[in-house]
Amino acid sequence: MGKNLTTRSEDYSKWYNELVVKADLAENSGVRGCMVIKPYGYAIWEKMQAALDKMFKDTGHQNAYFPIFIPKSYLSKEASHVEGFAKECAVVTHYRLKNAEDGSGIVVDPEARLEEELIVRPTSETIIWDTYRRWIQSYRDLPLLINQWANVVRWEMRTRLFLRTAEFLWQEGHTAHATEAEAIAEAETILDVYATFAEEHMAVPVIKGTKTAGERFAGAVETYCIEALMQDGKALQAGTSHFLGQNFAKAFDVKFDNTEGQQEYVWATSWGVSTRLMGALIMTHSDDNGLVLPPKLAPIQVVIVPIYRGQEQLEAISAVVNPLAARLRDRGISVKYDDRDTHKPGFKFNEYELKGVPVRLGVGPRDLANGTFEVARRDTLEKQVVPAEGIEEYIGNLLGEMQDAIYQRAKDFRDAGITEVDTYEEFREVIATTGGFVSAHWDGTDETEERIKEETKATIRCIPLDPKPDPGNCIRTGKPSPYRVLFAKAY
Amino acid sequence: MGKNLTTRSEDYSKWYNELVVKADLAENSGVRGCMVIKPYGYAIWEKMQAALDKMFKDTGHQNAYFPIFIPKSYLSKEASHVEGFAKECAVVTHYRLKNAEDGSGIVVDPEARLEEELIVRPTSETIIWDTYRRWIQSYRDLPLLINQWANVVRWEMRTRLFLRTAEFLWQEGHTAHATEAEAIAEAETILDVYATFAEEHMAVPVIKGTKTAGERFAGAVETYCIEALMQDGKALQAGTSHFLGQNFAKAFDVKFDNTEGQQEYVWATSWGVSTRLMGALIMTHSDDNGLVLPPKLAPIQVVIVPIYRGQEQLEAISAVVNPLAARLRDRGISVKYDDRDTHKPGFKFNEYELKGVPVRLGVGPRDLANGTFEVARRDTLEKQVVPAEGIEEYIGNLLGEMQDAIYQRAKDFRDAGITEVDTYEEFREVIATTGGFVSAHWDGTDETEERIKEETKATIRCIPLDPKPDPGNCIRTGKPSPYRVLFAKAY
Ligand SMILES: [Zn+2]
Ligand SMILES: [Zn+2]
Repeated sequence: MGKNLTTRSEDYSKWYNELVVKADLAENSGVRGCMVIKPYGYAIWEKMQAALDKMFKDTGHQNAYFPIFIPKSYLSKEASHVEGFAKECAVVTHYRLKNAEDGSGIVVDPEARLEEELIVRPTSETIIWDTYRRWIQSYRDLPLLINQWANVVRWEMRTRLFLRTAEFLWQEGHTAHATEAEAIAEAETILDVYATFAEEHMAVPVIKGTKTAGERFAGAVETYCIEALMQDGKALQAGTSHFLGQNFAKAFDVKFDNTEGQQEYVWATSWGVSTRLMGALIMTHSDDNGLVLPPKLAPIQVVIVPIYRGQEQLEAISAVVNPLAARLRDRGISVKYDDRDTHKPGFKFNEYELKGVPVRLGVGPRDLANGTFEVARRDTLEKQVVPAEGIEEYIGNLLGEMQDAIYQRAKDFRDAGITEVDTYEEFREVIATTGGFVSAHWDGTDETEERIKEETKATIRCIPLDPKPDPGNCIRTGKPSPYRVLFAKAY
Repeated sequence: MGKNLTTRSEDYSKWYNELVVKADLAENSGVRGCMVIKPYGYAIWEKMQAALDKMFKDTGHQNAYFPIFIPKSYLSKEASHVEGFAKECAVVTHYRLKNAEDGSGIVVDPEARLEEELIVRPTSETIIWDTYRRWIQSYRDLPLLINQWANVVRWEMRTRLFLRTAEFLWQEGHTAHATEAEAIAEAETILDVYATFAEEHMAVPVIKGTKTAGERFAGAVETYCIEALMQDGKALQAGTSHFLGQNFAKAFDVKFDNTEGQQEYVWATSWGVSTRLMGALIMTHSDDNGLVLPPKLAPIQVVIVPIYRGQEQLEAISAVVNPLAARLRDRGISVKYDDRDTHKPGFKFNEYELKGVPVRLGVGPRDLANGTFEVARRDTLEKQVVPAEGIEEYIGNLLGEMQDAIYQRAKDFRDAGITEVDTYEEFREVIATTGGFVSAHWDGTDETEERIKEETKATIRCIPLDPKPDPGNCIRTGKPSPYRVLFAKAY
């Protein structure tokens, strides 16, 4: 297998598209904008799901499931919400097909028209708050901390595998609280969960912040987010957590009796991460040889490739490898022993590099004689000869080291990719050349934000959490600004 | 909490509907035919998923994800398949909403009409075989053993929570093979997985068999199934595994080069179980006091209820209970200590009975003094005073015993519910009164099957696997029959 991968410096975008397909992560389907997530890509997503699901449960959340369809009238109840999603809704209008009377094939049965159109959920606030009205009567029913793993559909015109697809998989949390303070604390707790997950599992460093009014979720009072930096200098929003105030409670008339017996509207949050995280994972770490996966999310952490001629040599190698593989698995390490005789070792080496398997062990007759293995690590491509004795522990430690090293490398890159500028000229220069996050002053108005976007394609990614007071002047208008915000071109 | 549950003998159907809602398993949503699966119900489904997913992976399957939408033309490619699903398809025709020009609200944008309508998947054979055409070239690419966890939509006119809903959750396996024999073996392997899961995890005894031609999956050559018996004497199909022959390979032109370098069509299977299993679980075991859950699927296996007056007694009890709960959790037992002071013990006892928690421990000051707990088991409602010393082991054993006892009780009921009959008069009598499975001779024709169904509402649930030769005469026509088949009225 030659990799034939376009390099990042040649064409970063093409490199990404090719890598996703060649590493067997995902591909486009026959349905416009909808992807097929292939088994290897799905295995990574399952590992993400498992880690996140545990973090949600450890913070008191339960899973549930709500309908995929949302009556059009529900979507319309919260004005800014429908405004935000109306342009990208898949609409179900009929519930039956039939044979065309002229024998031309299968057609939609015009008599099976729905009285009210159904929207395939782009997000579930409306159907969930319609349900919460039945579940919440008293302060005793609060907080309600619920998450759902689901597919959602947003009819995007320009799609890219994982980054922007018409259908994607995600989790969406929807919580209900008795007080504003509690709801805000929940939104912040989840932001921390997302940041911890991104950094400790995905090895992707993130900046926590809030969105400007113009970039907020449709229906939110405040949108918290985590932002990551890709190798091409563009930012990627990796997760959002919204404080929804009482907007949905008011739209769906969800009130509770407080401890004084008075009726109040319920306070809400919602929050989500999606298969878009796969795009962040791929673009943060991978190189011109293919995927680089942090060990915690690698479906195969160690691959063992025998180098042999003839059945006898293979058997001698397998006699050493099989018990080693068992000992590694006892330590919770996922191992693949690739003893296929249909492919040469060089082909296999290439394949596992492309697929980002963190550690590769090579073993041939000479290694057997010497009691050694050749250990190659995917992140640095370094190789080392290691004694077979005690190699389980060596590999266990190595996987831990690699998880840290991959994170540190990404963090060094990200830190180096933040530039402070004080003039609009500098700003345009940085945005147009190296990119990255640009830390600059802004006068706080929608108009200025919009004008900068039109002029440079850069948007405000976030107002960093707890910004240190640092008064200055807006780069575009010169008006006063209390602290810097982060701009970038973004996915 | 008074349970106020309708009893089974009063109205079995009403008992079921009430139980599903009162035990917090699921409820109807504002979208016709679509249910909300509540956290407690979803926790049971998650346990089912985890067990099944492991069994699929242990038998070599991988998960993947395919689009929710199916172009109408794909669905139409396999003639009997579209025939089977056309009448219950949710059809997406538009991809945008807009503000009505007369200000009357949000309407479907007539300019955003799809060129080709998309069907919300009722099952995924067509979109998957369209994908497999790209994945399969050679015998080296086979077998392809893939499963997906997904939601599907079939527009049912009469719906019931879990048993028949417009949207449901399921897994669907789709495998591709080089030979007919291998594909048949796969379909049978999965039937065994389903039967093992039903019996060992759900404690639901099942009969394995094949469907008659009239009851086969639309597009299948052979449909294997497992059938269970509910307490009201009606059968429930709990899972199906289909041998699809080369039907979908031909419809989607999926060929492979065999070892001789010749092109052949690929052989296929598909198989699924759904949230319908929740219905089978509930109806098989539960009683007039509420749910009865087999310990392996119970989200809470042990609940501990303190019986106390005042904070001091509660603290003394908690000092004993908290370390016990920790020791039980160390054994992998899920424990809830319900020390809420807002509800009385009697209320809690009722609630956990209703929710089917297998084991309840009560502990009051007298128990503390005596070093004992009161242990109540949900299946038999028996109570016993047990020494605190060694109680972890006692409970561990008890949960195992209960799993077996619940299965055995259901199996005894099921076995007693199979009646052999040799005349149509007897047949009609049994079907109309006690119900259950009726083992009878049938002449093997669609017409007779159909006539019996019209006259008695009983259908052939299955032709048991490896039927013992037992020649006789069809109960309806007197024509010869090589072996008995199983009839029943069914969900
Ligand atoms: Zn941000
Ligand atoms: Zn059957």
